[in-house]
Amino acid sequence: MALSEFDLIRRYFADGFCGRNDVILGIGDDCALLQVPAGQELAVTIDTLVEGVHFFPGADPGSLGHKAMAVNLSDLAAMGATPAWATLALTLPGSNPDWLQAFSRGIGDLSRRHQVQLIGGDTTRGGLTITLQLHGFVEPGRALRRDGARAGDLIGVTGTLGDAGLALLALSGQYGVIDALEWVRRRLERPEPRVAAGRSLIGLAHAAIDISDGLLADLGHICERSGTGATLQLARLPLSPPVERYLAERGDWSMPLSAGDDYELCFSVPPRAQRAVEGAIRASGCAISWIGTIEQAPGIRCLLPDGGTLDVAAAGYEHF
Amino acid sequence: MALSEFDLIRRYFADGFCGRNDVILGIGDDCALLQVPAGQELAVTIDTLVEGVHFFPGADPGSLGHKAMAVNLSDLAAMGATPAWATLALTLPGSNPDWLQAFSRGIGDLSRRHQVQLIGGDTTRGGLTITLQLHGFVEPGRALRRDGARAGDLIGVTGTLGDAGLALLALSGQYGVIDALEWVRRRLERPEPRVAAGRSLIGLAHAAIDISDGLLADLGHICERSGTGATLQLARLPLSPPVERYLAERGDWSMPLSAGDDYELCFSVPPRAQRAVEGAIRASGCAISWIGTIEQAPGIRCLLPDGGTLDVAAAGYEHF
Repeated sequence: MALSEFDLIRRYFADGFCGRNDVILGIGDDCALLQVPAGQELAVTIDTLVEGVHFFPGADPGSLGHKAMAVNLSDLAAMGATPAWATLALTLPGSNPDWLQAFSRGIGDLSRRHQVQLIGGDTTRGGLTITLQLHGFVEPGRALRRDGARAGDLIGVTGTLGDAGLALLALSGQYGVIDALEWVRRRLERPEPRVAAGRSLIGLAHAAIDISDGLLADLGHICERSGTGATLQLARLPLSPPVERYLAERGDWSMPLSAGDDYELCFSVPPRAQRAVEGAIRASGCAISWIGTIEQAPGIRCLLPDGGTLDVAAAGYEHF
Repeated sequence: MALSEFDLIRRYFADGFCGRNDVILGIGDDCALLQVPAGQELAVTIDTLVEGVHFFPGADPGSLGHKAMAVNLSDLAAMGATPAWATLALTLPGSNPDWLQAFSRGIGDLSRRHQVQLIGGDTTRGGLTITLQLHGFVEPGRALRRDGARAGDLIGVTGTLGDAGLALLALSGQYGVIDALEWVRRRLERPEPRVAAGRSLIGLAHAAIDISDGLLADLGHICERSGTGATLQLARLPLSPPVERYLAERGDWSMPLSAGDDYELCFSVPPRAQRAVEGAIRASGCAISWIGTIEQAPGIRCLLPDGGTLDVAAAGYEHF
């Protein structure tokens, strides 16, 4: 970037948003130097948001900063990891101080809330592309993986499903003006990663995932990696009032099942841990719903409220 | 990416290029899980390459894969760290199997040579943008930082300077056809990161940096962070025959001093360690040259071979 790569980084990101004792050397050398706490495993995730693909051109920079951090925090949450350090690769068409300040504030506010320090990055010129990598800690052998589900497990989810998908339909003109637009839009643009909920599942859940690709696809990953299948009771899906209305009008189950961008957790739990998990998730400030069971037979079966079976391929689920 | 994010990752990157015992869980879950060796610090660096900015449109994908890994390995080398794990955020205009296979081979060949395992990533649709993050290990308190230079230190560099800059001038039509085009082009497109040289400087050098932004700018970073200045003897700059010819024809010192893309190391060494460093760098397979001294007075002074002083601002150096 012409003159300003270092200036940009210094001005808007140099404080790293918060200071951590385990950062030996932060932004400003060839590498950051870090100290993983003794006896902890390191969990690492990376996600890219591209203008025109993951967000609309001209999107609010504060929301983009928030979301770039949130989607990665959600991946750490899905492993039960405690967030620690971030790096940011920011590709920008130009250097717009207002944009950078708002973006930095969005990413910084969420970082501070989760005690994440920005420890390095790279700023380049090009189409707006935001790549964030996040590092966290988890006790050895305790991480919530995708491959631990067992037949007989109960399937739980946090929060509600389809809010982000409904916001996208409304914002792109595919669904009429709705009462709760600001609320669903916030669910799309300012998702709250379920970090405390994920941590609370350690030692209780057999498997967990975040459902950023949609419940069917992500539960499918759990089943595939665990060598199982699942049955979902659609009547039990946790749906917000606007999504309930949408379903009543259009009968389109594919939206809450597959639209994605829901940064909730889906997890499989042995029945004996059901009450403990309910208590733990609620103590973390999330709603919890039990929506089905893990089974030996591969594939995912969706039972409709009327007792029929949904054609899951028609619902946008083509993973297997 | 429409259908193929997971397919792409699986097909071309799923093997992670090499297997390491410290990778508990690699590609395929919400996070990778990693074990930093007991008593080691973690070194982290991230770099982005953007089409049309860092490389020509249509550039050879094998070279791009090599270079994305090389520029990050060079940052680890500059800290004296031992490479371990990589993540890759790849934004692509489409899914071209030939391109992906060649890119994967380029990044994989260099990864295997340095025992780097790819442990995660994200694949998205957009303008071609390659972000690679690399993790390495270094003994506590032993990393080569930018802030340790002291007045009286000797300034050393590995290899030769300006080859990549000359290749860029030739490939963009700003300099005529040259004999050694293939050789300088290889220096631009397939740089060899000085990983072993960097490790060998631990315990000997006071400061080190890789000179990817050009010698003047990067030595400037050392001086700024160390609270020092420097004098360079331009007659001692290590220059390849084609760069010698370019200088003889154009008298343009700014090219080898500031063109950048030289993935060599610059380091400051107390005089008592001079012979030990020469031996260590040569044992790592690199040439070494002593090109100047660290001084108390801030700023960088460049003495020309004829005894005059170069105007460093005119040479493209405007850091202070």
